[in-house]
Amino acid sequence: MILCDIGNTNATFFDGRKIWNLSIDEFNTYEPKEKIYYINVNEKVAQKLSNPLFIDIEPYIKLNSTYIGLGVDRAAACYAINNGLIVDAGSAITLDLMANGCHIGGFIMPGITTTLSSLKNISPRLDIPLNSQVDLECLPQRTQDAISYGVIKPIVNLINDFASGKSIYFTGGDGEFLSRFFSQSLYDRMLIFRGMQRAINENKEILC
Amino acid sequence: MILCDIGNTNATFFDGRKIWNLSIDEFNTYEPKEKIYYINVNEKVAQKLSNPLFIDIEPYIKLNSTYIGLGVDRAAACYAINNGLIVDAGSAITLDLMANGCHIGGFIMPGITTTLSSLKNISPRLDIPLNSQVDLECLPQRTQDAISYGVIKPIVNLINDFASGKSIYFTGGDGEFLSRFFSQSLYDRMLIFRGMQRAINENKEILC
Repeated sequence: MILCDIGNTNATFFDGRKIWNLSIDEFNTYEPKEKIYYINVNEKVAQKLSNPLFIDIEPYIKLNSTYIGLGVDRAAACYAINNGLIVDAGSAITLDLMANGCHIGGFIMPGITTTLSSLKNISPRLDIPLNSQVDLECLPQRTQDAISYGVIKPIVNLINDFASGKSIYFTGGDGEFLSRFFSQSLYDRMLIFRGMQRAINENKEILC
Repeated sequence: MILCDIGNTNATFFDGRKIWNLSIDEFNTYEPKEKIYYINVNEKVAQKLSNPLFIDIEPYIKLNSTYIGLGVDRAAACYAINNGLIVDAGSAITLDLMANGCHIGGFIMPGITTTLSSLKNISPRLDIPLNSQVDLECLPQRTQDAISYGVIKPIVNLINDFASGKSIYFTGGDGEFLSRFFSQSLYDRMLIFRGMQRAINENKEILC
């Protein structure tokens, strides 16, 4: 069984064993040879998905939530977790809180790469690579640290505020890096796929 | 006496009474008729500043600091304050801590408008105006609030962490808006000019 999570920049596949990526342009020329169970947040691939081998599992992710307009990728990641804070750190970072299988709410911030690019666009003086080793306990004393601190510290602080002792589940491209700042954390590259798999398992008679 | 603070997007003038702006393009065609005491962080205006009516006061801002590469606009704002947290909220937001006339350190984050644009560039689904009234005490339940919360909350949290009882001096385009979230805060549109004025007063015999 092949699962596929179609995002803004990539389509990520999982066959139960390995994970691989296609860019959105590559995805738009990709011809499936077997059923692909997918979720999608990208309007640019709508035509491609009319192929009947693509099966949308969004309707089967029955997340208990009062949130209006929750992206299906966030819903899928949350669907894999009963209790805890879910942080999906990609081009955007989403934080969502789950308690006893209910989605309590969440919010969206720009991701690390997005934040660095936005600073670069303000001034060439701010076009400086991240110092991933910056000390978050000391006030910066040079521009590279001032930027690195200003990128990482607000994210880490806010996650800390929300976690308050709960387990933190990281996923997404920068999830592993961010997870290092927290003791009660787990990095799970497959989190979205686990939620998708749960939805499929709950609807085997319809989907398989 | 006319003071001028040349930034990345605007040149801001102050004549001791009123403040006005020119875009950088406008500034590059502007012909001064009297002495203009300026500070500048923008490399695009270097040629214009060769006119001898423009007087650079950067060398006279003698801020006590070990920070390497502090922008002169940040130095000028800090030079106006002996004790407290200085927040300049424009296209970038800078936070700097002053204690007993010494600059302790600081850092740089993208500003509110910059952050909103960076989200918009990720996906059209994130192209949503700020809800400036978003409740920062409740987890968001819809996309507009999720974005507004994710833009404002990290900034407010981080300022709170650093202020820890100290006075907070806001300046810059979003300074007034952000100052509303803090009781021990003051919005001073003229903060950079006050620092420039101090430097001029201390060097009257050379500059005037």
